[in-house]
Amino acid sequence: MGFGNAGRELARILVDRGQDLGDRMGFRLLVTGICTRTRGAVIDPSGLDMRRILAGLQETGALPGWGSTGRGEGSNAGAAEPDTYDFIRECPSDAIVETTPLNIMTAQPATSYIETALRLGKHVVTANKGPVAWHYRRLATLARDMGVRFLFESTVMDGTPIFNMVSHCLAGCSVIGFSGILNSTTNFILDEMKEGASFDAALEKAQRMGIAEADPSLDIDGWDSAAKTAVLMNVLMDARVTPVDIDREGIATVDDAYLRNLGSSGRSLRLVCEGTRSAGRVRIAEIEAGHSFAGIAGTSSILSLQTDLMGEITLIESHPTVTQTAYGLLNDIIEVATGSPSH
Amino acid sequence: MGFGNAGRELARILVDRGQDLGDRMGFRLLVTGICTRTRGAVIDPSGLDMRRILAGLQETGALPGWGSTGRGEGSNAGAAEPDTYDFIRECPSDAIVETTPLNIMTAQPATSYIETALRLGKHVVTANKGPVAWHYRRLATLARDMGVRFLFESTVMDGTPIFNMVSHCLAGCSVIGFSGILNSTTNFILDEMKEGASFDAALEKAQRMGIAEADPSLDIDGWDSAAKTAVLMNVLMDARVTPVDIDREGIATVDDAYLRNLGSSGRSLRLVCEGTRSAGRVRIAEIEAGHSFAGIAGTSSILSLQTDLMGEITLIESHPTVTQTAYGLLNDIIEVATGSPSH
Repeated sequence: MGFGNAGRELARILVDRGQDLGDRMGFRLLVTGICTRTRGAVIDPSGLDMRRILAGLQETGALPGWGSTGRGEGSNAGAAEPDTYDFIRECPSDAIVETTPLNIMTAQPATSYIETALRLGKHVVTANKGPVAWHYRRLATLARDMGVRFLFESTVMDGTPIFNMVSHCLAGCSVIGFSGILNSTTNFILDEMKEGASFDAALEKAQRMGIAEADPSLDIDGWDSAAKTAVLMNVLMDARVTPVDIDREGIATVDDAYLRNLGSSGRSLRLVCEGTRSAGRVRIAEIEAGHSFAGIAGTSSILSLQTDLMGEITLIESHPTVTQTAYGLLNDIIEVATGSPSH
Repeated sequence: MGFGNAGRELARILVDRGQDLGDRMGFRLLVTGICTRTRGAVIDPSGLDMRRILAGLQETGALPGWGSTGRGEGSNAGAAEPDTYDFIRECPSDAIVETTPLNIMTAQPATSYIETALRLGKHVVTANKGPVAWHYRRLATLARDMGVRFLFESTVMDGTPIFNMVSHCLAGCSVIGFSGILNSTTNFILDEMKEGASFDAALEKAQRMGIAEADPSLDIDGWDSAAKTAVLMNVLMDARVTPVDIDREGIATVDDAYLRNLGSSGRSLRLVCEGTRSAGRVRIAEIEAGHSFAGIAGTSSILSLQTDLMGEITLIESHPTVTQTAYGLLNDIIEVATGSPSH
């Protein structure tokens, strides 16, 4: 569901490696349907030819059309604007991969899609942080009740294994807090401003490079960081928070001159996410030269987990591309396919 | 096997959490025997009272004596110097946790102990890097043939999940190279020298703080780093190397004055381990201020994995204590107990 940059990159990886992966790990992966908002939808219970789909999309800008390559399964065959709920119900699949465009402040329509799929007994893998930030407890409980997985590795630091690492590799260990730099746009802008750029010039450059959204306000105002903070608190520490519960600071009020002067001192400003089980915040912090947070440039990100037995473990993702987001989806799909124990 | 700092810390964690862990994860953990070189050995098929063992060890400096708390299983009951091979054969157990003192250059006697246990169909968890650096292929093949696990998470960066992360959380992804700072002694000494200490004074301080061994030559000359490099190459990239195959540099020849002058520039010297599938080296590298390697102080360590799909992922362990080593053993024990798929 959704076939934007991440979905298409995932499709390319599956074309290249899907067969080999399945052979090695003992499963067979078929893409039985794709549903988009503006490019149509397509279902084939026997498995879509993804190579052809990708080529066709590049040529015509659209999918071959719901039902046109399949066996007429879709009630909306040929419809220009497929109904997504119909798609979820009618596309025969064990799992859905949800990458639809999302309003982060309402977490919709992604949350409704996910809920619909879970209620049908389908595993769900999502790249959307909204549903996990706002509705984690409800969706996780629903998934457990239905005996399916609800996975979302790529919602924080793309495919860097955070949730999978804690669940598979830190058994017996409790996460008691975290801090991290988890938003590329603000990190990039703060770096540019330190080098002398104005806020507006830095933002424009970020947009030109495709790092910032056309509407960057959710990044700038710290909402994206607050959503990720809520996700980490809810999932890793069993908190019950939403993004509005996070004490939040944005970067729009940072003083250009102050930041420029900081440059020569070796110190940096970073928008830092912090959380414990009981409280989360997003704040502008001055980082000493030599601190691991100081070296996180541009689109890179960092997360330090404080644990009871393992002390502090830190993960860094360096200069990710869309491949890393797609890999996060693939990793969750492999989790589903190999039936590892649930979170 | 072996009941030094790491073994005793593991025992303390098991006293505190073993019951709860087993309840939550569906297994029951009994310590049925402990074998040491100088403090005796003890076997109890119904499970040792670890609280009493730890208290007794603190009081008398020795274990209660092989067989004395058990049912007379041991042929060497009461012997002052238990035969370790007899212990492995006669102690009823599904797994052994191997933490015996080791000669890193011969990997013995740990390798023979491990081999004996594997041939008896016992899972092996070890904290000793030697056997993995010198004999990984043989031991891993033997374990596979016997249907048991051979695990060694704590050999590199203590309990930081490297091997478990790659095997559980990077499925479908290939590691194609790595670089890291993996030796505390040399890292500490280089930092001290940068602050103005002589090599000898820095080494003495490291020994006083318990960071460096009484014989620090294996650290200083880069052998410890070379062994870890070989472990990572063998396990993560299916290489067939031993520590002597690693192009190795030590820190004994580093010039005091050069290092002191470096201080003001913000740059640092680090003993860096690097590996690909075909070649490994340990070298003194000058690290720029702001690079993630520059901030790795004292006993902390860092490892960057280069992968095909996930780009570069970096793990940092901050200021570990013996608890982190013990946690690595515990995590492997949980792996064994929960029967996750093998490496």
